[in-house]
Amino acid sequence: MNKEGILIVICGPSGVGKGTICKEFLGENRDIKLSVSATTRMPRTGEVDGISYHFLGTGQFEEMVKNGEFIEYARVYDNYYGTPKAEVLKSLKNGEDVLLEIDIQGAMQVKCSYPEAVFVFILPPSLRELRDRIVKRGSETEESLKLRFGSAYEEICKIENFDYFVVNDDVEKAVMQLDCIMMAEKNRVLRNKENILRKFREEI
Amino acid sequence: MNKEGILIVICGPSGVGKGTICKEFLGENRDIKLSVSATTRMPRTGEVDGISYHFLGTGQFEEMVKNGEFIEYARVYDNYYGTPKAEVLKSLKNGEDVLLEIDIQGAMQVKCSYPEAVFVFILPPSLRELRDRIVKRGSETEESLKLRFGSAYEEICKIENFDYFVVNDDVEKAVMQLDCIMMAEKNRVLRNKENILRKFREEI
Repeated sequence: MNKEGILIVICGPSGVGKGTICKEFLGENRDIKLSVSATTRMPRTGEVDGISYHFLGTGQFEEMVKNGEFIEYARVYDNYYGTPKAEVLKSLKNGEDVLLEIDIQGAMQVKCSYPEAVFVFILPPSLRELRDRIVKRGSETEESLKLRFGSAYEEICKIENFDYFVVNDDVEKAVMQLDCIMMAEKNRVLRNKENILRKFREEI
Repeated sequence: MNKEGILIVICGPSGVGKGTICKEFLGENRDIKLSVSATTRMPRTGEVDGISYHFLGTGQFEEMVKNGEFIEYARVYDNYYGTPKAEVLKSLKNGEDVLLEIDIQGAMQVKCSYPEAVFVFILPPSLRELRDRIVKRGSETEESLKLRFGSAYEEICKIENFDYFVVNDDVEKAVMQLDCIMMAEKNRVLRNKENILRKFREEI
């Protein structure tokens, strides 16, 4: 009975394991599309244009911003990152579900322009565990650790803007909870009322 | 992280198979309590007081109504039926989830007094299928069939007051969807915000 696809927005503090969860979640749900972000930063080795990112020139990106062609975008240091609107809306119209893995600021922009999206916040089991995970990745200097970990608590405090939380103490369990959230959202009356009423009215 | 239990209210037109679904759902989720209704009608053979129903005298029932001791109640012909408030609220306070299988009128009363409940509407695959199911049960006269089936469409039109719908074309699938709805609701930020923020604040 569903017509329009569901936009699911996944956020969480740096190091919480969003990437792993999203990868597993998409692996199990091949019908959910991952939105490809646009950026003005240079491609790194192995990154493919249109798959890893849409690599754009700064002028091109700013033109798109001016034309309102992003659902959300941000400038991080010298580079822009953003989610092109057209692609996402086209998939949703076609009944395809779309996943955005973005930062909290971006999520709040999406909430303004597309409030019917489902907003999920990934939580660490504890702050201590989050810190340990970041340290274990080993690629952090004391400086970048401070930068990445320092804002975690402030970010968690923004959870009230989200619909659901998922604690990442076990990836498999976290993915299962995401599956349930998507299934429950597909069973929301709000998303299906018109279709349901039309279907039964036609039988009268 | 959950403290208070979740009240799940399950409704649907007569003959849709609510009873079967609820039985299977409770069988799989032994930690969800089925609320025992009160009634003034006489016990039928095999019915046990306190398990099938709380069997009350009319005076006693009316006294409880006067004291606001029901979450919902209704008079059907000569008998009262209702859900005693104290028992349900006590279970919820203790963190136990509670299921109410009641009619739509009752559900709307619950919504007034306990809006944080989860309201689920069970739909038939089609009106034709619903009619066939009622007829197949065989216990219906033409008169009672009219009575039971006649209001089905009007009842379905009240679906906008509900949070979720579940189509009963396959009991196992319907129960799985109820499981997901409960799990998703347990992951709602709205139900857990205070606990989440307290937990992380304590770590700072």
